[in-house]
Amino acid sequence: MTWVESAAGSRYGVDNLPYGVYSTEDNAVPRVGVRIGDEILDLRRIVEMGTCADCPTCSALRAPVLNPFMALGRQVWSTVRAQVQGLLTNEDLAHQVRPLLTPVAAATMHMPFLVGDYVDFYSSEHHAVNLGRLFRPDSEPLFPNWKHLPVGYHGRGGTVVPSGTPVTRPKGQRKAPDGTVQFGPSARLDIEAEVGFVVGVPSRLGTPVSVDDFREHVFGVVLVNDWSARDIQAWEYVPLGPFLGKSFTTSISHWVTPLDALDDAEITAPEQDPEVLPYLSEKDRYGYDLRMSVKWNGTEVSRPPFADMYWTPAQQLAHMTVNGASVRTGDLYASGTVSGPQPHQRGSFIELTWGGKEPIALGDGETRTFLEDGDIIELNATAMGVNGELIALGEVTGTIYAAD
Amino acid sequence: MTWVESAAGSRYGVDNLPYGVYSTEDNAVPRVGVRIGDEILDLRRIVEMGTCADCPTCSALRAPVLNPFMALGRQVWSTVRAQVQGLLTNEDLAHQVRPLLTPVAAATMHMPFLVGDYVDFYSSEHHAVNLGRLFRPDSEPLFPNWKHLPVGYHGRGGTVVPSGTPVTRPKGQRKAPDGTVQFGPSARLDIEAEVGFVVGVPSRLGTPVSVDDFREHVFGVVLVNDWSARDIQAWEYVPLGPFLGKSFTTSISHWVTPLDALDDAEITAPEQDPEVLPYLSEKDRYGYDLRMSVKWNGTEVSRPPFADMYWTPAQQLAHMTVNGASVRTGDLYASGTVSGPQPHQRGSFIELTWGGKEPIALGDGETRTFLEDGDIIELNATAMGVNGELIALGEVTGTIYAAD
Repeated sequence: MTWVESAAGSRYGVDNLPYGVYSTEDNAVPRVGVRIGDEILDLRRIVEMGTCADCPTCSALRAPVLNPFMALGRQVWSTVRAQVQGLLTNEDLAHQVRPLLTPVAAATMHMPFLVGDYVDFYSSEHHAVNLGRLFRPDSEPLFPNWKHLPVGYHGRGGTVVPSGTPVTRPKGQRKAPDGTVQFGPSARLDIEAEVGFVVGVPSRLGTPVSVDDFREHVFGVVLVNDWSARDIQAWEYVPLGPFLGKSFTTSISHWVTPLDALDDAEITAPEQDPEVLPYLSEKDRYGYDLRMSVKWNGTEVSRPPFADMYWTPAQQLAHMTVNGASVRTGDLYASGTVSGPQPHQRGSFIELTWGGKEPIALGDGETRTFLEDGDIIELNATAMGVNGELIALGEVTGTIYAAD
Repeated sequence: MTWVESAAGSRYGVDNLPYGVYSTEDNAVPRVGVRIGDEILDLRRIVEMGTCADCPTCSALRAPVLNPFMALGRQVWSTVRAQVQGLLTNEDLAHQVRPLLTPVAAATMHMPFLVGDYVDFYSSEHHAVNLGRLFRPDSEPLFPNWKHLPVGYHGRGGTVVPSGTPVTRPKGQRKAPDGTVQFGPSARLDIEAEVGFVVGVPSRLGTPVSVDDFREHVFGVVLVNDWSARDIQAWEYVPLGPFLGKSFTTSISHWVTPLDALDDAEITAPEQDPEVLPYLSEKDRYGYDLRMSVKWNGTEVSRPPFADMYWTPAQQLAHMTVNGASVRTGDLYASGTVSGPQPHQRGSFIELTWGGKEPIALGDGETRTFLEDGDIIELNATAMGVNGELIALGEVTGTIYAAD
């Protein structure tokens, strides 16, 4: 039980403790903090108040991004988490630690880590089937490879931005129904509600990461909104995949939830048929029971269930490296759109509106198919924490700005 | 005319002067150097010997990678180039500068820059037509979008390595002719001979880079070997594009040739029909007349002509950013396989051997379709320099190692 009053019932209790990078009006230096309730604990200040001259952990926690800390590995992550939990639960330390708390409302949040490579998977069977039915109504909805490997592709790491960054409607080419090639602002701007995994410990070029080593490499979880311009994507993506339809902006949460906070959110992942190849086979096959929510101008339009994902993050990491490709600290790989079996569990608007044919009712009699300028999207998620209370993942918000 | 004797007739004269990062046995610190003849001029040492305390240029040239220098922009690039040319041509300075030269043979070369995002285009019409004929013999070889936009996709920045790095044969999934899904070392390991463009000056998120601003953003050119596992690629790439078939390793030259060295290699790029959209339209439409060479175990098997590329690097940059995506210092974008109209001008083995059906004769009666363990590939290129002498681009070599 923490002595931080704002943590009571907040879903950001001592069992959560996500990491972020923030600055304040009186101290413009971006620094690492941990969220507790409605406040942020300044880890850099904690380190500076200590007597440690320059151990790797204290050095890492002085950095303006999480990367150096994330590179140190699971043992350090667990130790620091336990130390922070100690500071925040020991009443005797409250008078010392309280001055190191800043209200979230008074902080400017920054990118929590420098993104290396960004990979986007496509691991929800419901999503893949829905898109197959929409785009290729006369064929099998899933391509033959889909159940043999977690299909994925590289996105643009340089345009991954923190929650709240304005999303400018992209311009681009599209093919009109009459066959002409047109240019202009995307008319089918969409979201993809996803969960992202952040690599802490790098791997060596030429050495695959086993499915069993997922927790040794992955530091934590962010929510991801992989904004997608469906008209640009549809015209460009053959044969090399999505490019400008995705690369304009990808938004992530300010907060990185450490895997340790999600121990009790682990659930057995769906059975796989056909059987997968040995490098993808898991003795203990688990996913995470994250309950996601998509709000469109304040109206909740979807509740995607991450528990239903066909491919697990451990399988995605093993697949991504089986050819010898290395991962680096700060690499981000996202799950792909999270869609459940029910219509109200779909994680993109192209699915929710069935290709734009079934508008969604928002508040005040408004309806939508794709995003309009000024629209605000908010992704959230909760999970069961280790003490039986719900914890929140960091939210991802974005407002659509008109193309210039 | 330079006083450096090894520059005479070397294709690395004072009109070339590519940049690289190297270290030596007596000084293990990676530092920026410029190649002249068979030697490297230590730019860091030049800066340290100067009286400048801390101007941006001198600070940048102290870094262990080219990124800070590349970020400074065209005016600085041109000034430094002129200064280096001065040092290397003024006989009176020879006795002072000579001690700052290291033989290339005595240097260990490093990655010349930290790679941000890596994008691979597909801009040779001959290559795209060849692959279309090989993979889809009953359809039009080019997809409908190909002449409207430079098709491209994101590759893996974290596995871009410098020339000479061993290339371990990747393992992965492939579909056997009998329809079963198999796993093992790639049996169709190939090359792609490409030219890469290195971004120096970043752009702002939301602001496209015009075709006219190519030279303000792009610092220089590297040669690229985009190693490709055709069997892995063929099975995985629908519908999101190439992933593990490419991401295991991409090799680049040690040397980055500044655009200023290629002024006289500019040629008018091929006419485009149909007319392109305004954002891709160039008043002065130029490419580069780079003559490439591919050697397989010492035998030259191809001479790809970069002059024939349908899409220019300025168009590629404009397209990559038209949706508002930003570029960062160190971003690398490659041309795609360079193939000319003639059979001996094809830049990949799948084209040269027509899908593996027409083996290539190497020396000593050996033949090849795809790469075998122990094979050595060497890419080179020359261009017309500004004084009417040929200059060389940095070579890219790689040796295939057996899968573990």
